[in-house]
Amino acid sequence: MTQKLNPWGSEEVTDYEHIFKEFGLEAFPEKFKEKLSHRLFGREIIVAHRDFGKVIDRISLKKPFINMTGIATSGKLHFGHKVDIDLFVFFKSLGAKNYFAVCDIDAYVSRQKITTIAEAKEIAVNNLAHALSLGLEEKDCYLQSRKEQRYYEFTFEISKKITEKTYQAVYGHTDIGKIQAVLLQIADIIHPQLKEYAGKMPSVTGIGLEQDPHAKITRDIAKRLPYDIEIPGFVYFKHQSGLSKGRKMSSSEPETAIFLDDKPEEVKSKISRAFTGGRDTVEEQRKKGGNPDICKIYELYKFHHHDSKFVSRVYHECKAGKLMCGDDKKDCVAFLNGFLKEHQEKVKENMPKARKMVFG
Amino acid sequence: MTQKLNPWGSEEVTDYEHIFKEFGLEAFPEKFKEKLSHRLFGREIIVAHRDFGKVIDRISLKKPFINMTGIATSGKLHFGHKVDIDLFVFFKSLGAKNYFAVCDIDAYVSRQKITTIAEAKEIAVNNLAHALSLGLEEKDCYLQSRKEQRYYEFTFEISKKITEKTYQAVYGHTDIGKIQAVLLQIADIIHPQLKEYAGKMPSVTGIGLEQDPHAKITRDIAKRLPYDIEIPGFVYFKHQSGLSKGRKMSSSEPETAIFLDDKPEEVKSKISRAFTGGRDTVEEQRKKGGNPDICKIYELYKFHHHDSKFVSRVYHECKAGKLMCGDDKKDCVAFLNGFLKEHQEKVKENMPKARKMVFG
Repeated sequence: MTQKLNPWGSEEVTDYEHIFKEFGLEAFPEKFKEKLSHRLFGREIIVAHRDFGKVIDRISLKKPFINMTGIATSGKLHFGHKVDIDLFVFFKSLGAKNYFAVCDIDAYVSRQKITTIAEAKEIAVNNLAHALSLGLEEKDCYLQSRKEQRYYEFTFEISKKITEKTYQAVYGHTDIGKIQAVLLQIADIIHPQLKEYAGKMPSVTGIGLEQDPHAKITRDIAKRLPYDIEIPGFVYFKHQSGLSKGRKMSSSEPETAIFLDDKPEEVKSKISRAFTGGRDTVEEQRKKGGNPDICKIYELYKFHHHDSKFVSRVYHECKAGKLMCGDDKKDCVAFLNGFLKEHQEKVKENMPKARKMVFG
Repeated sequence: MTQKLNPWGSEEVTDYEHIFKEFGLEAFPEKFKEKLSHRLFGREIIVAHRDFGKVIDRISLKKPFINMTGIATSGKLHFGHKVDIDLFVFFKSLGAKNYFAVCDIDAYVSRQKITTIAEAKEIAVNNLAHALSLGLEEKDCYLQSRKEQRYYEFTFEISKKITEKTYQAVYGHTDIGKIQAVLLQIADIIHPQLKEYAGKMPSVTGIGLEQDPHAKITRDIAKRLPYDIEIPGFVYFKHQSGLSKGRKMSSSEPETAIFLDDKPEEVKSKISRAFTGGRDTVEEQRKKGGNPDICKIYELYKFHHHDSKFVSRVYHECKAGKLMCGDDKKDCVAFLNGFLKEHQEKVKENMPKARKMVFG
């Protein structure tokens, strides 16, 4: 089965091998993983890369590299976004130069549901408060609408380096607003290497596999700009899937996602309805074991639980028929609500700072 | 004969009636001209308008209005550009709020011959020095690449208000760089009415008839933006034609244009080769008279000579066979070089200021 990559789609990406082959991605090698003590690397969540070797070299030499990612301010953040931010915070801890883009203009121009730029900015306040609470500092972040002239000028410079034909081939449309979003995203990734910012330096941006067209066009443009810069590097996530079967975790389908703003009752209710792939009866589950490979509870642990021994134990006990779905869900609710209680207290504290970062 | 309007074309526009009819422009009325004591209105050079009545009302009440125009920094300025700047300076003298855009980003993204943004900025220095010497002040001008965040943000807001279909219908392409130029041009015209600038106010921008597609899309977007603003007004120029027969005055055909940087010898040489439509022999010219309606020397006077009596005398003496082309050209060289000597001294003086405006 072949699968068409679509950066704005919402289908779950399942056919990784095909994608690797067709798009020339490199599988994430073991020798890199050894140098990166974070669950996202150990647990097969980051599965591929482009040019990440240069960043590994910088990390080994304890030299700085560019750590760049962004979130579109299109709504509340969920645990899928948390994975991106966790990775960013991890790279920050390795001594990176940090560029966390809060993409208010991007969200406004490319999303129909965001009808004014003011709306995008209100969402930005919320998103920023969460990012700060997950370990970012004010100096690590920027809002697209509050960037320097040089950045905007650069988005226009980029526009000259994409032909209509290339753009059409990659994106299959020439929607004017979405073109603007693409130009901003490319500027976000490359601009840290301009002399007015950190300068020439290997960079890494974590993206979903379905966003590889963006990565490729960005790398292509980087080669053709009149500046001495490194071709931007990327690492590729497996996306955390939604709580329902076969769905991506998505803000536009709230029942598929645990949001970082969710109340304990909402978490409990969503987890109780989550797909586990468990057997029809407790007896059958005891006898045949569960199926953690397709279980959304197990996936939540795999993506978010800090303790690999615990996650592994859940896996094996489920398989062995020792862990029933009901108990598993109860534990998971406790895990999530424990995390969220502490996190949401920080969010409340960080809210005034976030508002100031957006509105001055 | 019908004529297709093309904002990036270079054909001389001749079929005005057809254009008025097809595009719904209003011919410039006599009652407006009476209130505007400037040669461009008296001499049938400004031929049409959209919504200029609101500006006339403001002028009558001695209230401010927005005066907006721009030049793309694509090369040296010629006498065709001077007409735009002269009109702008006239509106400034009537108490307008002035927004003179020096379009360095626009020129870079939409013109193939400008290969770096640095090149566009060097041209901007030259163009600005000329604009200052023609009567503008520093506070009247801005460089696109040195504008405020709000302006850039606004270009992105605009992108959301043009559908792919509309864009294609108006421009017939979706060249990414040219789309950016269009967005900037629209922002240039509308942004003065944002609350961060002059606020809601009737505005006027002088453009060539072939640029009406820009005007229409700009007016359409102004209606659909979430801001309380006036629909921008426009006045339409007849373009000064080139020195050769049937050509528009254009930087890309240097032999057709007198540049504001031209030396006396260049002016003399170009005028000596200019098309006059004169008779084959002096005898025939004396007998039948000349044809000022197609004469490039007469046109230069009509567009640029301050003294309407002089211009009228040239017309009638030519028609009557009293003025020979050779003498006419000699006078014209003296007129142009007299103007340019004084002007170029001012340009030299203004150059450091212009450089500072571009590079800080």
